[in-house]
This record gives sequence, structure tokens and C-alpha cells, in this order.
Amino acid sequence: MTSKPTLHTSLSPALLNLYDVSNSIVVIIDVLRATSTIATALYNGARSVIPVDSITSCMEIGRQVDGITAGERDGQIAEGLEYGNSPFEYPREFIEGKTLVLTTTNGTRLLHIALEKGAKEILTGSFPNLSAVCGHLMEKKQNVILGCAAWKDRVNLEDMLFAGAVISAIGQHFSINCDSSHIAETMYEIAKDDLFAFMKKNEASHYHRLMNFGLEKDIRYCLTSDGANVLPVYREGMLEVRK
Amino acid sequence: MTSKPTLHTSLSPALLNLYDVSNSIVVIIDVLRATSTIATALYNGARSVIPVDSITSCMEIGRQVDGITAGERDGQIAEGLEYGNSPFEYPREFIEGKTLVLTTTNGTRLLHIALEKGAKEILTGSFPNLSAVCGHLMEKKQNVILGCAAWKDRVNLEDMLFAGAVISAIGQHFSINCDSSHIAETMYEIAKDDLFAFMKKNEASHYHRLMNFGLEKDIRYCLTSDGANVLPVYREGMLEVRK
Repeated sequence: MTSKPTLHTSLSPALLNLYDVSNSIVVIIDVLRATSTIATALYNGARSVIPVDSITSCMEIGRQVDGITAGERDGQIAEGLEYGNSPFEYPREFIEGKTLVLTTTNGTRLLHIALEKGAKEILTGSFPNLSAVCGHLMEKKQNVILGCAAWKDRVNLEDMLFAGAVISAIGQHFSINCDSSHIAETMYEIAKDDLFAFMKKNEASHYHRLMNFGLEKDIRYCLTSDGANVLPVYREGMLEVRK
Repeated sequence: MTSKPTLHTSLSPALLNLYDVSNSIVVIIDVLRATSTIATALYNGARSVIPVDSITSCMEIGRQVDGITAGERDGQIAEGLEYGNSPFEYPREFIEGKTLVLTTTNGTRLLHIALEKGAKEILTGSFPNLSAVCGHLMEKKQNVILGCAAWKDRVNLEDMLFAGAVISAIGQHFSINCDSSHIAETMYEIAKDDLFAFMKKNEASHYHRLMNFGLEKDIRYCLTSDGANVLPVYREGMLEVRK
């Protein structure tokens, strides 16, 4: 009898180094909205998404690869860039065949930490591609770290809920000795019937921030499962759909 | 109209630096079992508790102050020390009038971080002194950080549940823009009818560890409110009951 692979949840980039990254598949989770937008752009035919950590890099790499430059700061399209962070900005008729250079702060930073620590494989996960992530992890049967991007290292609710959704779906196939994972699963179980209402009731900080920017539609989309069910895999500096 | 003071929850010592420690009262939470034992020893008349981070310091300071030396490593009384981490080792007839020098890893480390960051006031909290902590925070009307000691920086369930119990009791008097706090409160609300059963159901790592050492009685005591309802305040290297 072989033992089950392990599964851990890192609730903040500041906690990722507590886990055995080099021996694991790391799923980067930034539900509102980076990893939801990445899944959506790739689902709609983007050739690749290049995540970068600064506006300057975004513009520079955008020029080099003739890509679409995108990113926000404080809810506005950042100066010098062309598009924002909303999944609705990347329909097929616009993004198909193009490269999206996306600057995000929390998600990109976590991705780079995972890379430096030598993760076996790096994926991005969000509700729009929940089933693709779960299917892949089931197939690989390797140790998993669900890495929440959080907000400037502060734990956030929506990334935890996505981790909980993964655990709820496939947790029984893993050995889970990790309170963060059990907490995430419990939170998801009580939230799952209406994730939007749960975010509102719990006064999630991102719920407030995005609602103030008039982005209820974005929140609802980003909390809905399998609207863009592809598997983004990070290789050589870019995210591409696993064929 | 004055605005409410803020309340944040730090789920791990590795996250404490994200919060404005120097402008806050910090409550150190190490439910299983350091802060429960501290409250109990002080409730039973200990003159003070000196928390130290190593066995060597424990022995040295124990000699200097003619104190009781206590601490465990891997569930056993550490070599060179006299007593362990169980609250049941410190009844009044034994501990009254004495100084307890206690070595803990997670709780002491967090306490020292709070001290270095210049916390306004440092308290210890646990279910046995829940009401004393809540009463004090209500009276002071200052910003609060609930600091979970966690386990080697990994988030744990029982410290989160205590933070949730505090928020459930007095949260409405604070301004809470902190997902960790809302998560803690939600977890406590669904757990509160039977915290022990909830720890078991959620496979909390400390539940398993202590049950394996035959310490169910300790867990049950440490999850019960107000059995040792004093307020330990940290001043000049020691915890004493606030008069």
C-alpha cells in the first residue's frame, strides 16, 4: 500500500517557506482577480500570460513580445498600460492568439517565491478553473501546496475559500496534517451555497474594495466555478495552457 | 463622535509585523497550553510567570529567582527542568507565592516580537481567562492585535478559535477590517457549542499530538472558558496579574 501524497495550504506568501516547496506542486491562488483573469484569458485563446511584478517591467516586456500590457493600481488601469485586471476585458475576439503581460502584486510575488524555492510545478488556480486544477492534482498524485496570494501578506477570505473548494473536492485522496487546510475546508463548506453572500456577510476586505469600484459583476464571476476551465502552467516565465 | 479602535488578528508570529504593533495592545494566544497554564498558575497564586525561550535560560533564571522551572519538549518534561506544561501541575497548594519560570517556544517567541516592536501593552489570553481579557480590552478602548502563537509559524485551529471567541464577545465595539478576524469569528461561531468535538472533527494537529500523549483532560480544560479568570500582563520580563 502506498501512502497518500500530502496537501498543505499556505494562507499567505509570508508562510510559504514553512512548507516543502521543492517537493511539491504549488497552486498559486489569487481569486480577486489575477488568477481568475489568467484562466479567462487563456481559456479565450491567449497564447500565453506573462506575469510581472512592476509597471515598468510590464511596459518593457510588452514591447519585447508585442503583447497586451495590463495591470491596475488602486482600482485604476496603471499609467502607461493599456488594460486592467478584469476578466471581462479579455473576450475571445480580443485576446485570441495574443500574449498578455499582466502586472499583479500579490500573485506574481508568490509565483516568484515558489519558483525560487524550486517548486516541482507551478499552476494558477481560481474558481473559473477549479475542476481543471482538481483533475490535474488527482492525476499527478504528488504533494500539493495550495498557495494563497493574500493581500500584502494579509490572509484573505476568497483565496482561503478556493483552497477549501479544492480540498472539499479531492482532499480525501491526500494526507492532510495542516490546520490551515481544515479551516479552509470548513469555511468553504459553510460558504459554498452562496459564496458571494458569504463574502458580503463576512465583510471580506476585497469584497468592499471591489464593490466600491462598481465591480460586483467581477466578484460574482470570480466566485463561479468552471467558467474558464483550463490549466495554466508556469514555464520559462510564462503561463500557458497545459495541452 | 469618536471612531472605534481597530482590531486585527495575526494568525502566525510570521505575520505579526504586518500590523501596527506599537500602537496596539497585543494579546498573546497559545491555547494548548502555554497561555492556559500561565493564567492557571497566576490564578492559583503564583507571584509571577517568567516566560523564556530556552531550557538553558529556564535553568539559569530559575536559579537566580529561586523559581520553579518548567517546560516540555516533544511532550516530555525537558531534561534539567522540574515540571511540565500542564495547567494541572500548578494547583494553589503548590504554586502559591512562587515564581514559575516557563520555557515555551511559540508563545515566548511571539511575546518577544511584540516587545521588540514596542507594543503598548502585552497580555496573554486563553479560554481559562477569556472574560478577563475581554473585560480589559473593553475598558481600555485601544487598538488591539490578537496574536496567535501558532506552531512553528504554522496557523493552528485552537488559537484562531480563541481569537474568534474574543471577537464574538466584544467585536462590535471595534472597527474590524481584517479577514483573519472575520474568519476566526465564523469558525468560533460554528465551533462554540462543543470546541473539543470541533477540534476532533477538524483533525487539529495539536488535538492529535496531545491526545497521543494522553492529555485529553488538558485539552478539555484549555478549551473551557473562565476557569482561571485573571489578566496576565507582561512587564519587565515577567507576567503578573493586573491588580
